[in-house]
Amino acid sequence: MPELVGNVLVGQSGGPTSVINASIAGVVTEALNHSCVEEIYGCLNGVLGILQEDFIDLASESQQAIRGLRHTPGAALGTCRYKLKKQQDFDRVLEVFKAHNIRYFFYAGGNDSQDTADKISKLAQQQNYDLRVIGIPKTIDNDLPVTDHTPGYGSVIKYICTTIREISCDNAAMGQNDLVQIVEVMGRSAGWIAAGASLAKRRDHPNDPPHLIFLPEVAFSVDKFVAEVKRVLAREKFCSIVVGEGLVDADGNYIAASTKTDAFGHAQLGGAGAYLQSLVEQHLPGIKARVVSLGMAQRAAAHCSSKADNDEAFLAGQAAVRAAVLEAETDKMVTLVRGNTDHYTCETGLAPLAEIANGVKKLPREWINEDGVSMNYQFVRYAQPLIQGEVAMPFENGLPLMAHLEKSRVDKLLTPYEL
Amino acid sequence: MPELVGNVLVGQSGGPTSVINASIAGVVTEALNHSCVEEIYGCLNGVLGILQEDFIDLASESQQAIRGLRHTPGAALGTCRYKLKKQQDFDRVLEVFKAHNIRYFFYAGGNDSQDTADKISKLAQQQNYDLRVIGIPKTIDNDLPVTDHTPGYGSVIKYICTTIREISCDNAAMGQNDLVQIVEVMGRSAGWIAAGASLAKRRDHPNDPPHLIFLPEVAFSVDKFVAEVKRVLAREKFCSIVVGEGLVDADGNYIAASTKTDAFGHAQLGGAGAYLQSLVEQHLPGIKARVVSLGMAQRAAAHCSSKADNDEAFLAGQAAVRAAVLEAETDKMVTLVRGNTDHYTCETGLAPLAEIANGVKKLPREWINEDGVSMNYQFVRYAQPLIQGEVAMPFENGLPLMAHLEKSRVDKLLTPYEL
Repeated sequence: MPELVGNVLVGQSGGPTSVINASIAGVVTEALNHSCVEEIYGCLNGVLGILQEDFIDLASESQQAIRGLRHTPGAALGTCRYKLKKQQDFDRVLEVFKAHNIRYFFYAGGNDSQDTADKISKLAQQQNYDLRVIGIPKTIDNDLPVTDHTPGYGSVIKYICTTIREISCDNAAMGQNDLVQIVEVMGRSAGWIAAGASLAKRRDHPNDPPHLIFLPEVAFSVDKFVAEVKRVLAREKFCSIVVGEGLVDADGNYIAASTKTDAFGHAQLGGAGAYLQSLVEQHLPGIKARVVSLGMAQRAAAHCSSKADNDEAFLAGQAAVRAAVLEAETDKMVTLVRGNTDHYTCETGLAPLAEIANGVKKLPREWINEDGVSMNYQFVRYAQPLIQGEVAMPFENGLPLMAHLEKSRVDKLLTPYEL
Repeated sequence: MPELVGNVLVGQSGGPTSVINASIAGVVTEALNHSCVEEIYGCLNGVLGILQEDFIDLASESQQAIRGLRHTPGAALGTCRYKLKKQQDFDRVLEVFKAHNIRYFFYAGGNDSQDTADKISKLAQQQNYDLRVIGIPKTIDNDLPVTDHTPGYGSVIKYICTTIREISCDNAAMGQNDLVQIVEVMGRSAGWIAAGASLAKRRDHPNDPPHLIFLPEVAFSVDKFVAEVKRVLAREKFCSIVVGEGLVDADGNYIAASTKTDAFGHAQLGGAGAYLQSLVEQHLPGIKARVVSLGMAQRAAAHCSSKADNDEAFLAGQAAVRAAVLEAETDKMVTLVRGNTDHYTCETGLAPLAEIANGVKKLPREWINEDGVSMNYQFVRYAQPLIQGEVAMPFENGLPLMAHLEKSRVDKLLTPYEL
């Protein structure tokens, strides 16, 4: 293998997950093992940090801080939703890479971020600049193709299932066949997250909550909703509902996708949860509906993250470095590959960035039961291993202790760039 | 002390907390120590269970189940918001107590429940029926008088602070002086819960989130709200806001309240978060506002409960039994008494039920800073000890394991009662 001597740059992009920082810890930990790596830089706020040369020296951070990243939510390097558009932007990226002798670029993100990484990689090849680009999968949405699942997904569904188990104890105490508990979860275009809530059911207890799961994969019907709630409340003290934010009607239009205000400034119906609550109030007199809207909390809940997920996020970071340094791989994303055995195992693989950037992994329709509001055993078998194990979160003075990076700045070498 | 031989009845009332079941575990554990206690019954669904003779045999539950109550949220015996109104209801209670030789009645709940317990106690005295009634404090609202604080409060604020610390990592990665993160928490008439969120700030980091806390104790003004958010966003990447559901305007009217009331005539609140979000959208163009509405999740989050709180809830249950059995006390509620030392200690005391039933502990105005949107050190000194320590939640197959009671029914001895 040709040894490529130079510097590492790692960045994060898009919405954080509770384990994306574990991937950064994996990159830094592995990069330190290789003598061809001279410096390990982090770019602040994704590609914005590249354009503006906002680099920090990750090798100078304490071991405690890097280890602390494994239980620190958010994106420690900052993130952005800025999309490289103009050719000028891409040229600037290469200019900055050359100035700082960046030879290894690792980018943790979802579809858009892998697309960005792909374009940077292709441009470097065109310009004969020796650069190895490896993407690291990241998204609570679990919608990246090729990879069996994405780091971030296991933790978000573990937290949601924990919340549902706990709320259901409260609901069981309060409900008298008259209580609807709605939990609104993320997931714009696919129901992976809402589907994951089905793991809250104990094995062989099909009547456990959640009783109804509304997914964007199944067209929503008011009549069916009302009938399903009635059916559950005839049997149970309460009806536990999980709804993804991306609910769509039979024409494929989003239902209650945004929050708006009327002319008087009063809040109108919020998201999907508030919408379902309004349906209960409208169509089911005497029934109370309560909404929990977890919002950002679900993708930041490091205190309740999955050890399997956390370990795999770290592993994906390590694998990215090894692929680039040892195998001279580039223009690929690390994938998670499930072993073909009854006992769950997970290794890493590689897939072309272009394949990731242009694809979406859909929730298989055959994993949704005929009723359209629950998941079958195929799904449970897929998702159950992803929530296993707990991460030992350090607490100080009664609260979780987060890693704080020193963020020692790398000197800028170029003239400032106008965005 | 006169020994009173007979049966114990314990019940739960009102909204659950994540530690109310620990109090039941305390009652059962302690009651087993006293030979004058013949049977230990639990009444299902609070006073409804008394009226309908829905009793279960708690002494026959496994030790594992009783111990499991210490980390099981909700109210394991069920609860109710039914209010004993008619004299006939009270007469029925006494009739049931006499039929089952109930000589010790322990009732875990808030103001309304202690009022109910007081009335039952007074009626027994009038009828010369030897009954010892001891209330066990319970409410996340922390608004019971006399007692230093209430079991349930420490855990709810520990969970909220954990959530704020975590979300803030996400907000810090995403915000570019343009993000408002609103966390809506419970708290009908007092700001105890919202105030507790201030513990999320690290010591000596006054600019840590949450940046603004809106309490029912401070009249809400739209102009001030907008000005405060602008002030924070001029300095910080994001503005972290905590708002209690019981926000009031300068005239003392609830903001964002629906017209509904519960069985006790309390306004059903909700929507303060969505209301603030609408204000941001209206008055601060270009600023994004996101809402997390924790709802029931906050009072059910046993996986993130405070060990100090859990231990005190258990202790309160034990103390109730000891007061009744060993001290022949009745018509009292167990209180938590803070030691007069720098190092936090907590013992139990007793206060007349009537005093609890008719009082409300307000959040001291002098613990709120002049700015009206943050808490001072007096509050921190008060609340900090209540969130200390973590409860080792058992997990199975990736999710918290809840206690399941067998609920062996006690034979009914009377004719059914018409509610």
